[in-house]
Amino acid sequence: MPAISTKGLAMPESPIRKLVPYAEAATKKGKNIYYLNIGQPDIKTPKVALDAVKNNTLEIVSYSHSAGFESYRKKLANYYQQRGIPVNADDIIVTTGGSEALLFTMGSITDPGDEVIIPEPFYANYNGFATASGVKVVPVKASIENSFALPPVAEFEKLISSKTRAIVICNPGNPTGYLYTKEEMDELSALAKKHDLFLVADEVYREFAYEGATHHSVMSQKGLEENAIMIDSVSKRYSMCGARIGCVVSKNKEFISTALKFAQARLSPPTFAQIASEAALETPQSYFDDVINEYVDRRNTLIEALEKIPGVRVAKPKGAFYCIVELPVENADDFAKWLLEDFDYNNETVMIAPAAGFYSTPNTGLNQVRIAYVLQKENLIKAVQILEEALKVYQNN
Amino acid sequence: MPAISTKGLAMPESPIRKLVPYAEAATKKGKNIYYLNIGQPDIKTPKVALDAVKNNTLEIVSYSHSAGFESYRKKLANYYQQRGIPVNADDIIVTTGGSEALLFTMGSITDPGDEVIIPEPFYANYNGFATASGVKVVPVKASIENSFALPPVAEFEKLISSKTRAIVICNPGNPTGYLYTKEEMDELSALAKKHDLFLVADEVYREFAYEGATHHSVMSQKGLEENAIMIDSVSKRYSMCGARIGCVVSKNKEFISTALKFAQARLSPPTFAQIASEAALETPQSYFDDVINEYVDRRNTLIEALEKIPGVRVAKPKGAFYCIVELPVENADDFAKWLLEDFDYNNETVMIAPAAGFYSTPNTGLNQVRIAYVLQKENLIKAVQILEEALKVYQNN
Repeated sequence: MPAISTKGLAMPESPIRKLVPYAEAATKKGKNIYYLNIGQPDIKTPKVALDAVKNNTLEIVSYSHSAGFESYRKKLANYYQQRGIPVNADDIIVTTGGSEALLFTMGSITDPGDEVIIPEPFYANYNGFATASGVKVVPVKASIENSFALPPVAEFEKLISSKTRAIVICNPGNPTGYLYTKEEMDELSALAKKHDLFLVADEVYREFAYEGATHHSVMSQKGLEENAIMIDSVSKRYSMCGARIGCVVSKNKEFISTALKFAQARLSPPTFAQIASEAALETPQSYFDDVINEYVDRRNTLIEALEKIPGVRVAKPKGAFYCIVELPVENADDFAKWLLEDFDYNNETVMIAPAAGFYSTPNTGLNQVRIAYVLQKENLIKAVQILEEALKVYQNN
Repeated sequence: MPAISTKGLAMPESPIRKLVPYAEAATKKGKNIYYLNIGQPDIKTPKVALDAVKNNTLEIVSYSHSAGFESYRKKLANYYQQRGIPVNADDIIVTTGGSEALLFTMGSITDPGDEVIIPEPFYANYNGFATASGVKVVPVKASIENSFALPPVAEFEKLISSKTRAIVICNPGNPTGYLYTKEEMDELSALAKKHDLFLVADEVYREFAYEGATHHSVMSQKGLEENAIMIDSVSKRYSMCGARIGCVVSKNKEFISTALKFAQARLSPPTFAQIASEAALETPQSYFDDVINEYVDRRNTLIEALEKIPGVRVAKPKGAFYCIVELPVENADDFAKWLLEDFDYNNETVMIAPAAGFYSTPNTGLNQVRIAYVLQKENLIKAVQILEEALKVYQNN
């Protein structure tokens, strides 16, 4: 039998998706599940985006430009400019989700054996993209004690070697909800410039900054033009995760022309989804105001309820719609499986994402889970109640 | 300034797309261009597929299963079964175009430094996917003299080393239009089994087999279940290249579960395009009959016209909608640029794809181009006339 590659065997299972078979089995048994595991918002996609797809007049669904519709890139540049991010259409390559933007970035700036430094916990699929690219993730541990703020820059600097190509951050953070301050962005920028590294910022949750907090884009950092790479996506902003449209943005011409070669090899991003994404730029501000209010409300509800559970610790997120929660269990992976397989509370249970998969350091975050607050308030309340009951039963097992 | 990766610098430019800037400049000058360079059919997408997207009732464009809609995979399995390809929904992962199917395959079966053997000329983007994966393409030269039939299996066997992981074929061939016979498929299968290699068949043009010729799928090869991997796509079958839906198919469970980990890392294939693709399976047979008749007619028109040009040689394709054409020029790359920049015939010109980019061996196919016969007959006739006039002028330059 022909052999699977070493790389393929090393590909991590998604901590968000690996429990799906258990959830499917539970559903088949008639159990109702509250999904706290995946960042799939229940917010409606803007009507203007849905209508554009419904009213499309295509007769042939053709390839688009490999960098995406020019019309879309121009409007997108304008969207960024209005938010203090000085980029042009030529600085943007439209990708199939933020995922592909990350893959093109990894391919363009790393070779097998190279290293990227990432504060952990981090978006679990960075592990997947790094493994797929043969790149080593070098983690710097952030702590729940200080809400996963940026670890001291000296911790990063210690880890920089001749193989280091980039520092990757997610801002605001998935899974932490942490929003980097201007000072933190300045420190990272200085470090990247000092060591000639790329600073890659995954900003797909940019619009989700709460209580008037300001998001500081990597693209707005003065003097960082050649080092800064921004990853973006329409998935969360417009609640259209299934569209699969993102982009990679940089003022570094050599980087963009390299990433474009990866883009050309796969021909083009999806056409219908580009139509939706271009139209989504016309979404009224009231939509975002409502969404942000809703998430703040959900976050407050969730955090308040979680903090009442004995032995539970949670870092209050400033952005995005996730939080890392420390549970009074030894192994959150076992607990998450048990919730789906063996537990129910009035025939209901919850699905949570064990946090260990968001760390690169082995045996870290074993008692933590990621919770996405993408459900309506009353469902979040029910879900946390179920979690509380479950912990009581589990601890007495 | 931070450094671009060696891999990024090595990424080949697409021979189909690299002349696009010249074409754009020509268009700006008011020149009309006949595009023979890209396999973007002018055939209309089936109405049933377009209507499904127009009539979709989604309120939230959510992630789908990482392997694609289950409903779509079931219907797709049924589609294959009806064509003598015995696969189930579980053997299929829906991908973002055939491109992503190739990337998942490369990732699952090769590590950096590994080798894959491919008869050349081959689909140019195989070079891109191989470079992106750090894999070496080892070419076996097929010849225009015998219409690019499979080179003797002994030629393959000579090249098999401990690093060889797979043989990759495109059937029917892009850019050759060659359709492998049952005997050729049997020889390749025996070789793959003997050396424990994967046999990867890119069958995205499966339905385009002319004059009653039978297409022999790698998935129908008896006893090859563990070695066979099929790449497919809706792009050409339903003339919806921009949808970006393909799939990777195999009975090898270990391979599929590995490829699924790559699929999970990028979350899901595009939702709107899956809706279109699922509906497209209801396309009436009359659509295909019309399309095939149209392509046979175009092919015959094109080949007949080309064969009349002095110094031109062409291999008559049995499938797909490409042919490799040998021109009486030294360097087809220079000629293709010249056609766009410096030539016109009544203010019209043609865009062709230099064939060197479809070869892996350096300095091969320099006097060849790939022509896609995706234009209406009268336009093909005009385009060949322009080509003939251009050759006269170019040879006298």
